Amino acid sequence: MRARPYATTNPHRLAAALLQVAARSGLDSASVREVASEAGVSIGAVQHHFPTKDEMLAFAFRALADRVLGRLSSTDPDIDPSRTLFAALSQLLPLDEQRASEAQVMAAFAVRAATSPPLGAIRHATLFTMRTGLSAVLIRMGTPEPETRATLLLAAVNGLALDAIASPALYPPEFLTHSLHTQIQLALADG
Amino acid sequence: MRARPYATTNPHRLAAALLQVAARSGLDSASVREVASEAGVSIGAVQHHFPTKDEMLAFAFRALADRVLGRLSSTDPDIDPSRTLFAALSQLLPLDEQRASEAQVMAAFAVRAATSPPLGAIRHATLFTMRTGLSAVLIRMGTPEPETRATLLLAAVNGLALDAIASPALYPPEFLTHSLHTQIQLALADG
Repeated sequence: MRARPYATTNPHRLAAALLQVAARSGLDSASVREVASEAGVSIGAVQHHFPTKDEMLAFAFRALADRVLGRLSSTDPDIDPSRTLFAALSQLLPLDEQRASEAQVMAAFAVRAATSPPLGAIRHATLFTMRTGLSAVLIRMGTPEPETRATLLLAAVNGLALDAIASPALYPPEFLTHSLHTQIQLALADG
Repeated sequence: MRARPYATTNPHRLAAALLQVAARSGLDSASVREVASEAGVSIGAVQHHFPTKDEMLAFAFRALADRVLGRLSSTDPDIDPSRTLFAALSQLLPLDEQRASEAQVMAAFAVRAATSPPLGAIRHATLFTMRTGLSAVLIRMGTPEPETRATLLLAAVNGLALDAIASPALYPPEFLTHSLHTQIQLALADG
């Protein structure tokens, strides 16, 4: 019987290790060597699952985007649509430790997507899904210019997250939630 | 007479070279070696001006932030405040090649600022200056909640820029300018 040296890990565990390294030290630090060390496996075990760093990054970005999109789309619809929008969009703000890590790594991937076509394709699909979902809510409500206002809701949240991760003192959680409530109120206004 | 091997370059020229490398290949690629090659000088010449990569990055980030803030603050005030706001904030959107490069590198610095205290301090000061300037305009106009709405104007623009750099097909220039006009209109609404 042959040994199965890679049976102790799997791509999802390696992606989780990559996200931990990236949240702590930035995405640049998420090398194959660092990810192996974080996951407690050999470099060969990482390379077995991901022959190149680009493949490892793409898998981790898709896993992160899927996790966040899953939370967004499983938001329970409230009788008040502004509360439904708040529950969904607050998933993207750094309001606790987990969301702060996610926001930071999502922004890092978004930046890297500008110079990496495979990551760009994942980013594009994620933004498209989010914008379409938000537009659908605004269309059902009869909001003027639903497509533009959905884009602005998403942009305001992504921008608040980007601004907050580097300057938490300027963006405490209660200010972030108040700002999101205000943007939703503006987006749902008539005229 | 001694040779002056570093007289052919200066920190500003090196910062410009760094921004070119970062816009083309990402901020990770902006190593001392790459910046020296882009500027056509020796690695020693770069190290003479910037003993560490962190110092080089901080100088380049400050130079970029100063350039963008300079353009924002030199916007001619229009009789219509929404036009003044548009002229200032459109400086931050990737509406032409120069602003696209700037937006991409600004976002890359913003992400890196989350894990680098010296870059974080520059990002903090830049955001504070922008938010304060926008608040002042809204306060003069008697807009409700000027501080929150100024934060949202800035966040929406930073978010649009972040979303557009990785997905230009979802964010063509005319859609970006329309979205900015809409956000300004929402920010200036009563109630």
